[in-house]
Amino acid sequence: MKKIILLLLIASFSFPVAASAQTEVTAASVLESLDMVWIMIAAFLVFFMHAGFAMVEAGFTRSKNALNILMKNFMTMSIAATLYFIVGYGIMFGASGGGFIGLDGFLLSGHEDQIGFFVFQAVFAATCATIISGAVAERIKLSSYLMLTVAMTAFIYPIVGHWVWGGGWLAELGFVDFAGSTVVHLTGALGAIVAVMFLGPRLGKYSGGKVNVIQGHNIPIGALGVFILWFGWFGFNGGSTLAADPTLIPSVVATTLLSASAGVIGSGFYSQLKYKRVDATLTLNGALAGLVGITAGTADLSPLGAIATGLIAGVILIEGVELLDRKLHIDDPVGAIAVHGLCGVWGTLAVGFFAVEGGLFYGGGFSLLGIQAIGILAVVAWTMGMTAIVVFALKSAFGIRVSREEEISGLDFSEHGSSAYESSKSIFNENPNPTVDKDFGVGLLNRLDSLDRAKTKKEERPAQ
Amino acid sequence: MKKIILLLLIASFSFPVAASAQTEVTAASVLESLDMVWIMIAAFLVFFMHAGFAMVEAGFTRSKNALNILMKNFMTMSIAATLYFIVGYGIMFGASGGGFIGLDGFLLSGHEDQIGFFVFQAVFAATCATIISGAVAERIKLSSYLMLTVAMTAFIYPIVGHWVWGGGWLAELGFVDFAGSTVVHLTGALGAIVAVMFLGPRLGKYSGGKVNVIQGHNIPIGALGVFILWFGWFGFNGGSTLAADPTLIPSVVATTLLSASAGVIGSGFYSQLKYKRVDATLTLNGALAGLVGITAGTADLSPLGAIATGLIAGVILIEGVELLDRKLHIDDPVGAIAVHGLCGVWGTLAVGFFAVEGGLFYGGGFSLLGIQAIGILAVVAWTMGMTAIVVFALKSAFGIRVSREEEISGLDFSEHGSSAYESSKSIFNENPNPTVDKDFGVGLLNRLDSLDRAKTKKEERPAQ
Amino acid sequence: MKKIILLLLIASFSFPVAASAQTEVTAASVLESLDMVWIMIAAFLVFFMHAGFAMVEAGFTRSKNALNILMKNFMTMSIAATLYFIVGYGIMFGASGGGFIGLDGFLLSGHEDQIGFFVFQAVFAATCATIISGAVAERIKLSSYLMLTVAMTAFIYPIVGHWVWGGGWLAELGFVDFAGSTVVHLTGALGAIVAVMFLGPRLGKYSGGKVNVIQGHNIPIGALGVFILWFGWFGFNGGSTLAADPTLIPSVVATTLLSASAGVIGSGFYSQLKYKRVDATLTLNGALAGLVGITAGTADLSPLGAIATGLIAGVILIEGVELLDRKLHIDDPVGAIAVHGLCGVWGTLAVGFFAVEGGLFYGGGFSLLGIQAIGILAVVAWTMGMTAIVVFALKSAFGIRVSREEEISGLDFSEHGSSAYESSKSIFNENPNPTVDKDFGVGLLNRLDSLDRAKTKKEERPAQ
Repeated sequence: MKKIILLLLIASFSFPVAASAQTEVTAASVLESLDMVWIMIAAFLVFFMHAGFAMVEAGFTRSKNALNILMKNFMTMSIAATLYFIVGYGIMFGASGGGFIGLDGFLLSGHEDQIGFFVFQAVFAATCATIISGAVAERIKLSSYLMLTVAMTAFIYPIVGHWVWGGGWLAELGFVDFAGSTVVHLTGALGAIVAVMFLGPRLGKYSGGKVNVIQGHNIPIGALGVFILWFGWFGFNGGSTLAADPTLIPSVVATTLLSASAGVIGSGFYSQLKYKRVDATLTLNGALAGLVGITAGTADLSPLGAIATGLIAGVILIEGVELLDRKLHIDDPVGAIAVHGLCGVWGTLAVGFFAVEGGLFYGGGFSLLGIQAIGILAVVAWTMGMTAIVVFALKSAFGIRVSREEEISGLDFSEHGSSAYESSKSIFNENPNPTVDKDFGVGLLNRLDSLDRAKTKKEERPAQ
Repeated sequence: MKKIILLLLIASFSFPVAASAQTEVTAASVLESLDMVWIMIAAFLVFFMHAGFAMVEAGFTRSKNALNILMKNFMTMSIAATLYFIVGYGIMFGASGGGFIGLDGFLLSGHEDQIGFFVFQAVFAATCATIISGAVAERIKLSSYLMLTVAMTAFIYPIVGHWVWGGGWLAELGFVDFAGSTVVHLTGALGAIVAVMFLGPRLGKYSGGKVNVIQGHNIPIGALGVFILWFGWFGFNGGSTLAADPTLIPSVVATTLLSASAGVIGSGFYSQLKYKRVDATLTLNGALAGLVGITAGTADLSPLGAIATGLIAGVILIEGVELLDRKLHIDDPVGAIAVHGLCGVWGTLAVGFFAVEGGLFYGGGFSLLGIQAIGILAVVAWTMGMTAIVVFALKSAFGIRVSREEEISGLDFSEHGSSAYESSKSIFNENPNPTVDKDFGVGLLNRLDSLDRAKTKKEERPAQ
Repeated sequence: MKKIILLLLIASFSFPVAASAQTEVTAASVLESLDMVWIMIAAFLVFFMHAGFAMVEAGFTRSKNALNILMKNFMTMSIAATLYFIVGYGIMFGASGGGFIGLDGFLLSGHEDQIGFFVFQAVFAATCATIISGAVAERIKLSSYLMLTVAMTAFIYPIVGHWVWGGGWLAELGFVDFAGSTVVHLTGALGAIVAVMFLGPRLGKYSGGKVNVIQGHNIPIGALGVFILWFGWFGFNGGSTLAADPTLIPSVVATTLLSASAGVIGSGFYSQLKYKRVDATLTLNGALAGLVGITAGTADLSPLGAIATGLIAGVILIEGVELLDRKLHIDDPVGAIAVHGLCGVWGTLAVGFFAVEGGLFYGGGFSLLGIQAIGILAVVAWTMGMTAIVVFALKSAFGIRVSREEEISGLDFSEHGSSAYESSKSIFNENPNPTVDKDFGVGLLNRLDSLDRAKTKKEERPAQ
């Protein structure tokens, strides 16, 4: 440990914090400060989206796996930030290396003045990775998931990012993805679909020749998560302006607001039409569908184009869930593949249709639409191929799925030796004897005993 | 569908995104950028208040209606943003039309440069509308609620807004409502009280000649909602400066913080005095009372005036709840009418008492106080009258209340065919057999089966 | 009441809101506006941290005490803001009085132009105070807790703040605590440890010669709380720049992100190593450990220094919990003392080790490290001494602990006459008879009956 720290220290000598010299105040210097403030606040909002992902994923799945999902969300953010600092940023934005890969700027070396931009990009990288966690919930091994996260944030995602945002070949081609319908959302969803295909559905999901319902355990926190994601998305799209542009930012924010609203309306009404009910989880996901849909074109669409994009995204979501779950039997507990994958594709193509400059419906012909399609195909091929290699390797080496017994008892117990909620008795204050508490399993400081017990008696569940 | 999209497209041709031409950087241009950044961030915060409303309303009511309330919150935000874009903004800020109504700027046509201001105002419009959803919770039909939301955001609220903020007759008169104690909060509460009067109390609320208690199901998420509202309110009041004014903003933020704090202290201590308990939900609502109370005068009161306003608001809240619930038998599950209505009136009058310039207690005489009272009366007459017409029409045409059976089973089942939480068994991981999951009702992708079943067997509840 | 308001009014005459005169726009004036916008947004984020504290503390303890904890969080924020305005700010930043205490600026008198800075500092003061609430949860009397909060925010904390940030003797000495590892976090934790020592452990915690586990009731909202705290911490550290510095802010934000991430990784992997499990609550607290750890040195450490600081903080957290709970039998339900106290000490010392300028590992020798140690010792002596006097006085005069019966029944019932959650039956919609609702205990407007009943029959629990 000490040796590692010393090594870290030596490396860090080469990275002094920029001295904040008091230079003369000019309009240009103030604008530079303002740009930085805007990007930082946007980065905070994108960071906060991870709270949203955590609540959506925990709420839409079963309580017996809630701790495990929360751990995955925290670990994803943490591993992504660290690895993106060490290697991901360099691959994505390194100047040398050409159109396929960047090859300098590791540890931000030589890019110290881009540290603010790095923060903004690091929380994006984590967003891409965390999309997978919802789709593979309730059955993937934590260790395998974390190794996949390493591959995704250190390599698979940064390559895609280099192509589009790092001056790579898709950028050269004219591919438009302002804030990442393809770069972030589709890439994450492609990782998810590959992982799910290797993993298989949850026990009981498609048993008996039927598509069985597995109930989410806490939709109110899931709905809170959707609101947090929507809130954070204003930073996701708004910050992608990378500057405090007084005409571009309001336009981006307005299209984001309107497309998300149209996504809610589209999915709500389409679910009413199709199922004679305003379905709650589909309508909540409709907001996310509208947000993913507008992400590529947020700077290039008009408000009405944004509304159309969101309405269509809401419908695509529902038909996508039908297709993936009922027809293809791809078990995605939170709908991540439909939301981020199908609506990511739609959003990328929507630029080709609706862009005020160059869109098909604005007289721009098929040129932009074709470029958008090429970009999608390239990202599909790269991400699915690479993820397949990684997941296959993990499966061969360690196995990626928990055992049947662990899945039945829940990953909270099998992976973390605990549970997300207090027993039903004490929730309702019906326990008059405090000494009974001694056998409970969660309380922070007091976990240690039960952890020790779990260490020795791994298979035995604590009495609850 | 295709035809509608084409129509949308044609319309959107007239609305190109403003070109962000790189003009020369001057102090004035940077200030313009800064103003825009401030308004945008404030708009994000006001948007996030809807997460707060959703958590307060869901937490303070019963779990069997939680999904329904969440749907109302998402739909309100979405319908409000869309309709306010199409028609509401034009009525509120249109130049032609005179002091009563604005009549241009529909679809922002001719006001394209105000798109940032539109976003800020759109989330305000949604706030006004969503206040109703808490008061009518647990018994209103979703469809009727949504139609009332349409009327409120497209017409009733924009008219009030035009009078005060759109250069209308109350603005001419000298009526002061900086951030909307009257325009937003009182207007929403007046819509709520009318809707509740047509709707009647929840089953069992006043049965047997008694005022019965109906328990909220999750106060922790309700408390989180109050914190989110308070957080967002800094944007609500702070953004109403409409510019990054370095002396006005801190003053607004400080009065907002202090009045809310005084509201908590006022209601907490008054509840201790009156009931010998620091009542939790009254104290939580005390924060909101202090916030509604300071909203009109946030830019015109001193810090001590803000503390006085908040303390009094906390007391008004409790006496208001006593009056509305026990005396008048008006059933408002979350206390929205007392918080937004009575404290909205108080906040508007408080300007007349405490405004540093023109307030009665600062030697300004009764003139401002009189104008404030006129404004309140005008808004009461307009909003109650118009809402009564709309609600009466809805009641006559469709009915506004769910059936007795639907209310008893809960709106989550009757309107959405589902429930907000997993069954008690699986929350506590006591279900060792995954195949039992097949009968559950929520899990996102897996809802489709049960929805289809619900379609055919509408009256039958799924086995849980 | 009227007399008090009149007195308030007279006082407030001396505090007119600053007139926002339209002066000429220069680069310097725009920069002033930008600095103010940055500080205000940072203050909003720090305010929002209180929602995070509330969720962490409520989630990590038992449901029977959840309302009580939430009340403490709201009251702490409110009392702190008010008292810090009246007296705390003057003690902390008053110019006269010398190196130990400030003695002017009460009610901001003469410091009206610092009202924005006051807001930022007021939410910091509340943060320090609220750290105590988690450690003393589930057994302290609400009234005694509130009196301790008064002492902490009006006097104990402002003195420490004056020493370090108000130009006091530790500032003179060269003590470095950029955003408050010592000033805020260690001070709060020292108050907590003293209060806990006077209070004793919860019933059953160390009974039968064993360290018993007392389960937290809702880890998902606790995890949300951690995400909110992390989000808010960007404002806590970032705003402490006190200016929109385009090189310092990104550096501060990056070190904050990386240290928190390293804290998660450090505690997660160390818990895997030590207990063969990625423990959920320890990993969640690992994020907070990394954040507290970087708070002192956020502006002076390199990214790699931040990662090292966070990794070590994650390990210190786990060993600290082991020490405090198992060895010393100090019962801290949420781990506040380990997180804010031990990691506060670590973070303060880490500056001495890792500061790019003056740190031991960067060739700066032991000088800075020695100063940091002196500062810690001084704060330990002052805060523990003063808190001990206050808590001893409270204990002697009123008693600080609820009765055994009240603790067993839960503080929600004994202090607030209510409960945080609906009974289990109605959560799962199994109550077909609405008239049964009349006996429930929470619903806001409907609480009044039960409150009255509670007033007369204090010892009798309502039938649930």
